[in-house]
Amino acid sequence: MVLNIAVLAGDGIGPEVTNEAVKVLKAVASRFGHDFTFTPALLGACAIDKYNEALPQETLEICREADAVLLGAVGHPKYDNNPDAPIRPEQGLLSIRKALQLFANIRPITIYDKLIPQSPLKADRIAGVDIAIYRELTGGIYFGEKYLSDDKTVATDVCSYSVKEIEQITHMAFKAAQNRRKKVTLVDKANVLETSRLWRRVVSQIAAEYPDVTLDFLFVDNAAMQLILNPKQFDVMLTENMFGDILSDEASVIGGSIGLAASASVGDKYSLFEPIHGSYPAATGKGIANPVASILSAALLLEHFDLYEEADTIKNAVAVSIDLNYCTPDIFADSTYSTDDVGDFIESMV
Amino acid sequence: MVLNIAVLAGDGIGPEVTNEAVKVLKAVASRFGHDFTFTPALLGACAIDKYNEALPQETLEICREADAVLLGAVGHPKYDNNPDAPIRPEQGLLSIRKALQLFANIRPITIYDKLIPQSPLKADRIAGVDIAIYRELTGGIYFGEKYLSDDKTVATDVCSYSVKEIEQITHMAFKAAQNRRKKVTLVDKANVLETSRLWRRVVSQIAAEYPDVTLDFLFVDNAAMQLILNPKQFDVMLTENMFGDILSDEASVIGGSIGLAASASVGDKYSLFEPIHGSYPAATGKGIANPVASILSAALLLEHFDLYEEADTIKNAVAVSIDLNYCTPDIFADSTYSTDDVGDFIESMV
Ligand SMILES: CC(C)[C@H](C(=O)O)[C@@H](O)C(=O)O
Ligand SMILES: CC(C)[C@H](C(=O)O)[C@@H](O)C(=O)O
Repeated sequence: MVLNIAVLAGDGIGPEVTNEAVKVLKAVASRFGHDFTFTPALLGACAIDKYNEALPQETLEICREADAVLLGAVGHPKYDNNPDAPIRPEQGLLSIRKALQLFANIRPITIYDKLIPQSPLKADRIAGVDIAIYRELTGGIYFGEKYLSDDKTVATDVCSYSVKEIEQITHMAFKAAQNRRKKVTLVDKANVLETSRLWRRVVSQIAAEYPDVTLDFLFVDNAAMQLILNPKQFDVMLTENMFGDILSDEASVIGGSIGLAASASVGDKYSLFEPIHGSYPAATGKGIANPVASILSAALLLEHFDLYEEADTIKNAVAVSIDLNYCTPDIFADSTYSTDDVGDFIESMV
Repeated sequence: MVLNIAVLAGDGIGPEVTNEAVKVLKAVASRFGHDFTFTPALLGACAIDKYNEALPQETLEICREADAVLLGAVGHPKYDNNPDAPIRPEQGLLSIRKALQLFANIRPITIYDKLIPQSPLKADRIAGVDIAIYRELTGGIYFGEKYLSDDKTVATDVCSYSVKEIEQITHMAFKAAQNRRKKVTLVDKANVLETSRLWRRVVSQIAAEYPDVTLDFLFVDNAAMQLILNPKQFDVMLTENMFGDILSDEASVIGGSIGLAASASVGDKYSLFEPIHGSYPAATGKGIANPVASILSAALLLEHFDLYEEADTIKNAVAVSIDLNYCTPDIFADSTYSTDDVGDFIESMV
């Protein structure tokens, strides 16, 4: 298969981990006889530095022409505590999600048996956890109007959802559930929010089209608790943008390290794959960043193109690396393996 | 001391647990020679059933005339999946918070050593945890405009914050930190939300008035993760209404059961004390609800009036009940002690 992959390595540890994912994808291409090409482009703080834009037009065009996008991470601390910064790196990420209409962000949460001792949660709660979080990615408070009053004393963010926005991800979540344990949990705050009540109405209607799938509802505060108390109760978790952001980061602790958590962002036409971790400024350039989340994002990319055997090869290689303690220090604190070492090892197993 | 306490037992398990708290407060009054009177009033589903209003005027007047309010829980499942219900029980809770201007909800998170084995988290992560969550309670998306378009295809919730709203709770949080470990963590989503950027600006300015207190910042997604990975890093956690709702329920798992988590809601003039758990419909009338969260809320009420010795007496009695396994089944699954048994035991220790 010929795949042209846009590579938006981004900021902080983004380039380091993405580099390892590309390495592994190249090994897959050569082993399975595919033709993968990689086109780099700038996004985030690195793009602001060069073009004064978080998502330059050139980058967007490269992504639109590509078959898929592999993203590292965006964000730089110099913007975080400056409320007056006119452009922020994160705008690049939000803009590309919107421009490519990547309305569903899918975050699988599982745990390697070997890593159960690393998790902050007790073994009996997490062994066998298998959750797919479906987070709406192009709507809600992330993309509503924002304003600051002229005298700077009142700030406002607007959260809106349309039936159409809810429908498209809901169908995707129910179809996924049909191939899994046939349960969808809608997480919302319907006892307070109008948008949540719309979610509940639309999702309930769509559920009738999938009689083999059970739908249940959970308020977001309770969901944040249940994810830790009893994560095994969840199969597909469906939720809006902001709640999905919070719950999926929270859920990543189950697996022992956010450095292992991958995600796929998909729409009707485009797809983008990225680790759920951020740019982790404090680790930048130290060779301690875990490349596995990025490498597993590359595996999700392959699955998206039905290259299941290729994806499994990567996933197995990752499992072997973990079994052999071939991990960065976020997993085993006394480990001396670098980002590069782990990437090389996984590449060698492909 | 003479205290007139309005008792809003509410729905579900609310009346059962509140009953035990009142019992314990009566024992405190008689032991310490205080004069506590209790005035019941309706709030939530029970008020809708009787008056077709979630917060009847009469209830509000009783609360305004009282020195403090003791609240059970509100909510009934018959409203949760009915997006068209014209009145919902939760409106009663939100209206009373607003009417009494209870702008700060304080949720202490600690763990009894005896209960460390009950927590879903591993012992080394949680032993010694001591967090005070300061959640803004009368602003944000909870109280912004809400609308559904006429054709019911678009729903909207507006989130606003003013400088004044941020200032009042921030001063309270910093003062609390001065009497604790002198650290405030502001949780927000300043990389996306305008309201969060206003929070960051205002809180940073106020921090300068408290040079003995350290301020740091955390994005809400990261905070949801850090609360589980390393809860000991937190002292005072300050945040807006919706994030506080989610994070405080999540944090309650640290202590092993939400059935232990109490809260105080305070403003300049009024105060209200309630467990953080909800109405727990499935447990209603079964005698299995844990009364400790309500009893500890009564202890927070006493502390609010500087009755520290009295509050400590309650807290010690609770600690003894836990030490002796005198707990409802949410704590020890094989326990046969009922709500009433636990309340009686704690009362007897006062
Ligand atoms: C960087 C930030 C804007 C982003 C988000 O909130 O969506 C990140 O946390 C994520 O989850 O991908
Ligand atoms: C019942 C609900 C409206 C309420 C809230 O979200 O504030 C509850 O969850 C709480 O935390 O007190």
